[in-house]
Amino acid sequence: MMKFTALSAIADLAKTLPQADQAASDAAFARQNRLTKPLGSLGRLEELALFMASWRGLAQPTITKAQAIVFAGNHGICAQGVNPYPQEVTAQMVGNFQAGGAAINQLCRANGADLSVVALELDRPTADFTAGPAMTEAETLAAMQTGADAVDVAADVLILGEMGIGNSTVAAAMTSALFGGAVADWVGPGTGADSDGIKRKIAAIEKGLARHDGLSAMGVLAALGGREQAAICGAVLAARAARIPVILDGFICTAAASALYAADPALLDHCLVGHCSAEPGHRKLLASLNKRAVLNFDMRLGEGSGAALALGILRAALECHNGMATFGEAGVSESEASGA
Amino acid sequence: MMKFTALSAIADLAKTLPQADQAASDAAFARQNRLTKPLGSLGRLEELALFMASWRGLAQPTITKAQAIVFAGNHGICAQGVNPYPQEVTAQMVGNFQAGGAAINQLCRANGADLSVVALELDRPTADFTAGPAMTEAETLAAMQTGADAVDVAADVLILGEMGIGNSTVAAAMTSALFGGAVADWVGPGTGADSDGIKRKIAAIEKGLARHDGLSAMGVLAALGGREQAAICGAVLAARAARIPVILDGFICTAAASALYAADPALLDHCLVGHCSAEPGHRKLLASLNKRAVLNFDMRLGEGSGAALALGILRAALECHNGMATFGEAGVSESEASGA
Repeated sequence: MMKFTALSAIADLAKTLPQADQAASDAAFARQNRLTKPLGSLGRLEELALFMASWRGLAQPTITKAQAIVFAGNHGICAQGVNPYPQEVTAQMVGNFQAGGAAINQLCRANGADLSVVALELDRPTADFTAGPAMTEAETLAAMQTGADAVDVAADVLILGEMGIGNSTVAAAMTSALFGGAVADWVGPGTGADSDGIKRKIAAIEKGLARHDGLSAMGVLAALGGREQAAICGAVLAARAARIPVILDGFICTAAASALYAADPALLDHCLVGHCSAEPGHRKLLASLNKRAVLNFDMRLGEGSGAALALGILRAALECHNGMATFGEAGVSESEASGA
Repeated sequence: MMKFTALSAIADLAKTLPQADQAASDAAFARQNRLTKPLGSLGRLEELALFMASWRGLAQPTITKAQAIVFAGNHGICAQGVNPYPQEVTAQMVGNFQAGGAAINQLCRANGADLSVVALELDRPTADFTAGPAMTEAETLAAMQTGADAVDVAADVLILGEMGIGNSTVAAAMTSALFGGAVADWVGPGTGADSDGIKRKIAAIEKGLARHDGLSAMGVLAALGGREQAAICGAVLAARAARIPVILDGFICTAAASALYAADPALLDHCLVGHCSAEPGHRKLLASLNKRAVLNFDMRLGEGSGAALALGILRAALECHNGMATFGEAGVSESEASGA
């Protein structure tokens, strides 16, 4: 069981955590080139199968158990008028997740994932980061631990999502601090901010950045992040320890995990990004992380919805990889041009 | 039951076939705006649900039965050395489809589609179109009829795919004739042609275009197409008559159906394109048809594989549309900014 004791120790974890298994990936690649299809013709489905092989350490990986976790938190930054929804919506949506009425419930059912809903002290929002650090180190570590402990180590893949009124502002604050550039380039409408709302978001973030300068990557998580962001980081690390590939969701989820990337890029090697969100900062963030999203579907809901949608694609990739016949098995002639 | 009696009668079918049901689409849209999510935040999933509503004529359409059909044919144009695989591979792959070993079998199983495999006189290839018309009108109509008759009118959605050694050349010949432009812009590697093979493809197509000039859209299908192309056109029309939405596959499948578009663009109103193929002509063809593919996954296999992958997305869209709670049902507050 992974235990977090200090934020300063996180960057060093990359040296001790499991790495991609190149031999398994090579064996998977050799198999793909014997299957009854022109070489490479399944495109990104083949890449996904190799990715799964490398992290599961198997030439023919399967998904028997898929876990999805939605972490929910509340944010002091809402005092700055950054979101048109009342903050009670976070708890109301947690109730909706538990009752099965949200998009993530339908997408988990459609694609065969077990959904865990983890609400993180919703009645105790983080501090307003324009006035001080959002969380203490102890609060940050506790939320990371909750995230890590929520991971089912028997899962073959982990989907991560989040819910938290105000957390697109938190995400943009984190990415601004971690990757730089104009704050406005990281800020979008979120759940529905109008142009005045966007101005309030930018102003709040600029105030926060001025207050919290020169932080380490994990220091950014504490000062500008929130409990669901810390929990996502904890879950990503616990999944890595168990060789469980992760599918991150949209802008907010990816921004949370990007604190780990800034600490050491290798910490996200086992993570896919399920979709490219319509929230404008996500495209910029994907470029910063050197990641290509699995899907691009103009979605901007969060909850893990884009990641759960991508799970269906990942399952299809493995069905092809494991279920197709080889040329020899099927008695199909290979290309004369291939020399085989 | 749809009966085809003359190619010249096809263009007029658009006037008699069912149209999109705007009232059902409006009712579906009204429902989406009551579901527990920010307006429009499920992006293209919402568009797909509205598309299904409009063609099934239901505010809450479902997919109880999904049919996939792969049509296979052989082509006289292979005499021009346009494909590195021997022509026997068409029949061998049909055997592989029937035995369950191909990619399309895995993707149909993964996404819940029943697969029908229809081989069209594989031992009687079409004529070499550089020397004369590929098919007579009677042969074309017969293949269209086979395609139409293969459609299960009890299905809620139809996935179309194809197999036929040499048929990326047939597809490029059809799109060159139907939409114009440089032949080279429509030609790609197909199953694996090298640069010499691509030159042979271009030369064969240019010879065919010179021989068959000034044809009607359906005349292009007969002169430059093939049996699986005609069957796809027949199936598209039969599906329309039964208000069954269609998911077309990649370049070759879309090129086949594009003969109908050239006859009357409205004939493809009920068709999605499942994915944008890596075969370079497909992007150009999608622009010509004013269609945006559901997925873009660098696939170039055919068989209906990209369309079957898109079925999973379509199912997910309807799960959200039908399964999510409304704000009222879930007791979730709406946006203060929305005025609700």
